Amino acid sequence: MGVLPSRVIERKRQGRPLTSDEVTAFFQGYLAGEVQDYQMSAFLMAVNFRGMTESELGSLLEVMVQSGAVLDLSHLPGPRVDKHSTGGVGDKTSLVLAPLVAALGAFVPMISGRGLGHTTGTLDKLEAIPGFRTRIPLDRFRKVLERVGLAMMGQTEEIAPLDRRLYALRDATATVPSIPLMATSIMSKKLAEGIQGLALDVKTGRGSFLPELQDSLELARTMVGLGEGRGIRTLALVTGMDAPLGKAVGNGLETREALECLGGRGPGDVTDLSLRLAGEMLWAGGLVSSPEEGAERAQRALGEGKGLERMARLVEAQGGDPRVVENPHLIPEAPFREVVEASEEGFVQEVDPLALGYGVVELGGGRRKIGEELDLRVGFIVDVAPGESVRPGAPLGKVHAADGAGLERGRAVLRGAVRLGEAEPPSPGPLVRERVADLASAG
Amino acid sequence: MGVLPSRVIERKRQGRPLTSDEVTAFFQGYLAGEVQDYQMSAFLMAVNFRGMTESELGSLLEVMVQSGAVLDLSHLPGPRVDKHSTGGVGDKTSLVLAPLVAALGAFVPMISGRGLGHTTGTLDKLEAIPGFRTRIPLDRFRKVLERVGLAMMGQTEEIAPLDRRLYALRDATATVPSIPLMATSIMSKKLAEGIQGLALDVKTGRGSFLPELQDSLELARTMVGLGEGRGIRTLALVTGMDAPLGKAVGNGLETREALECLGGRGPGDVTDLSLRLAGEMLWAGGLVSSPEEGAERAQRALGEGKGLERMARLVEAQGGDPRVVENPHLIPEAPFREVVEASEEGFVQEVDPLALGYGVVELGGGRRKIGEELDLRVGFIVDVAPGESVRPGAPLGKVHAADGAGLERGRAVLRGAVRLGEAEPPSPGPLVRERVADLASAG
Repeated sequence: MGVLPSRVIERKRQGRPLTSDEVTAFFQGYLAGEVQDYQMSAFLMAVNFRGMTESELGSLLEVMVQSGAVLDLSHLPGPRVDKHSTGGVGDKTSLVLAPLVAALGAFVPMISGRGLGHTTGTLDKLEAIPGFRTRIPLDRFRKVLERVGLAMMGQTEEIAPLDRRLYALRDATATVPSIPLMATSIMSKKLAEGIQGLALDVKTGRGSFLPELQDSLELARTMVGLGEGRGIRTLALVTGMDAPLGKAVGNGLETREALECLGGRGPGDVTDLSLRLAGEMLWAGGLVSSPEEGAERAQRALGEGKGLERMARLVEAQGGDPRVVENPHLIPEAPFREVVEASEEGFVQEVDPLALGYGVVELGGGRRKIGEELDLRVGFIVDVAPGESVRPGAPLGKVHAADGAGLERGRAVLRGAVRLGEAEPPSPGPLVRERVADLASAG
Repeated sequence: MGVLPSRVIERKRQGRPLTSDEVTAFFQGYLAGEVQDYQMSAFLMAVNFRGMTESELGSLLEVMVQSGAVLDLSHLPGPRVDKHSTGGVGDKTSLVLAPLVAALGAFVPMISGRGLGHTTGTLDKLEAIPGFRTRIPLDRFRKVLERVGLAMMGQTEEIAPLDRRLYALRDATATVPSIPLMATSIMSKKLAEGIQGLALDVKTGRGSFLPELQDSLELARTMVGLGEGRGIRTLALVTGMDAPLGKAVGNGLETREALECLGGRGPGDVTDLSLRLAGEMLWAGGLVSSPEEGAERAQRALGEGKGLERMARLVEAQGGDPRVVENPHLIPEAPFREVVEASEEGFVQEVDPLALGYGVVELGGGRRKIGEELDLRVGFIVDVAPGESVRPGAPLGKVHAADGAGLERGRAVLRGAVRLGEAEPPSPGPLVRERVADLASAG
């Protein structure tokens, strides 16, 4: 590269803007092995403190997208749209909304991640379905998409390889919660899907990676700006993550709950958020004139069983047993299960998502680092929500564990996560806190 | 290590204090290969933004010192003292003060560095003396010290190896000008010398690594605190580096000028600062009751030719030609030399030390990176100082170059470095801006 790596790092450290050429040369130099890991990690830490300008973000995103293949799906007879969440506990909306949106004429080429830290990932949830394969070649992914209207796979070497390298480095060097780095990481993968519309679910609150609403809003605006800058209709819902979404926490349990939602029997908050995001996707794809209209159409499709039918086709196309869709109990269950009861009377003050998320990790169902094998059966079913009152002996929830030790640990986690108190807590407020879209027209 | 490296980096990034155990485990883990370069560089960048607590500094210094050998020189029949400068342009005081201090009964085990960036280094200057060897084993160093009262060598694998690794990493990742990292880097090497007293010359102004007086003062206080914390009598002079010290800039030329100072014929500023620092060293070693008394004794020793005589013994003991001491012109001279004259009349507004320092690098006499071979003959003799008036045709200085192209480049550098103007500039003020010592009693 024509510019010294240490000079680029120095400018970022000093908070001076980098030119597009400098950003491009630095990151392409990293891909080419001319910039070392230890230089990149120092740069990323400096970004953590100094942020990135809009121009720097755009240049970085471009290098990240171009570092791998960009799908050309222009031959499909409908708009390509996707949804991405920044990661929360109990969030299984992707499995609900993707088949609904596909059933309504959009194509959903969903390239997802695995669970990391206290959150679970869509890929792991799908693999809880017997036979379901998420490691498929790109051309197989493409064929499933053409036939079913949706397809789901993990990141491959071919898609945004720079992001994979940067993410592993950030994870090892404590620069994950940097807004510009989160934004470019997410958007590079989504833009490589060759989509035309994107709905983002940016979590906020103690169960998210960015607990402060202000930070979540900034991340939402940054991503919407990046998407719009590349001609993708992009919007973000900033949604609360102060308690788990739905009742199920843990991979297979969450998949079951998602299928129950598709069958019309799932928890209200999961169903509502899924329909709202599905409506946004349909709007982003130009299939409806407003997100509200989109949500109504999604609700109707749900009621008509179209989501369930589309999900069965997906499962079959990707090697899974399609009978699970009608009968979620075919998803393997953990051998040790126990209901945990309240030992005192009170109002539920809090259901701590972090405690439950890390609890799943402790039970063997989450990763401490990339590459670990999981027990997809373990987790929690939480029977209470903040604000509800309970009596002694009432069920707080159920632990699903692989062995007796896990059961014991799970009991303690669940009991610790559900905080009871005498006073009735204030209402948690609406799940969707803000909607960010149309930055240009708002400006 | 018992603690996850990424957690230590995260705490530093968040500005939360680390325990002594965490600091020790992190840096020892780095030495043991358990913490990777890319993790250390991210940590160092976070330190750049967050600083270090007094306790963290102390723990880091301890690991750095203990990473290698600590000289035991307690058998010497006099106090062991040293001096260290943070690096300026034209600074050759070490070569003047060390023989004077040795002649007055102290022992000076000086482990020095090489030039980097726009500054020259003591080792390179010494090697301009024909035959002088700075790469000597530790036991040879010890013997020279015993016999001559001073000895000079470069850093070895044995002394503070952690500092060498950290310094190379900082250089490649743009975290050199961090006050806690500079302070521990310098102090670890000096403390490994097994000294009892230390005089620090902390440069300030545009020719130094820390241009702002406030930063230079903080560095001075940090280092004095670290030295005192380990029972070493430590003081720092904060001295101006807005113009080169003396007239000579470039390795061999600076060595000549230092020998001229020892012979009583050198520039006043170099001689004055050398005597002042020598006085501080004698005071730090407990040989005099005040720095002023020390400076007077050093001046007397200089006048009696004791410094020159001691320098000749050092040169001989380390393999060099001792005749250079009486006749500095035996130091090889560059083949192309030319006087540069003023083309207009005016007052010298500025003699830019950075321009001259980087000019030496351009002429082949300085390093862009560690390990480069140098031409020790090239450089500049500057004949004017800020505030002086010059007429057209008056000599501004002389360029010493290896070839015609160097001569041409040198002319442009020298002409650019000496800025003339109509108005008489304000007096540059005293060279020594502050003295930092006795933090405990001052507190």
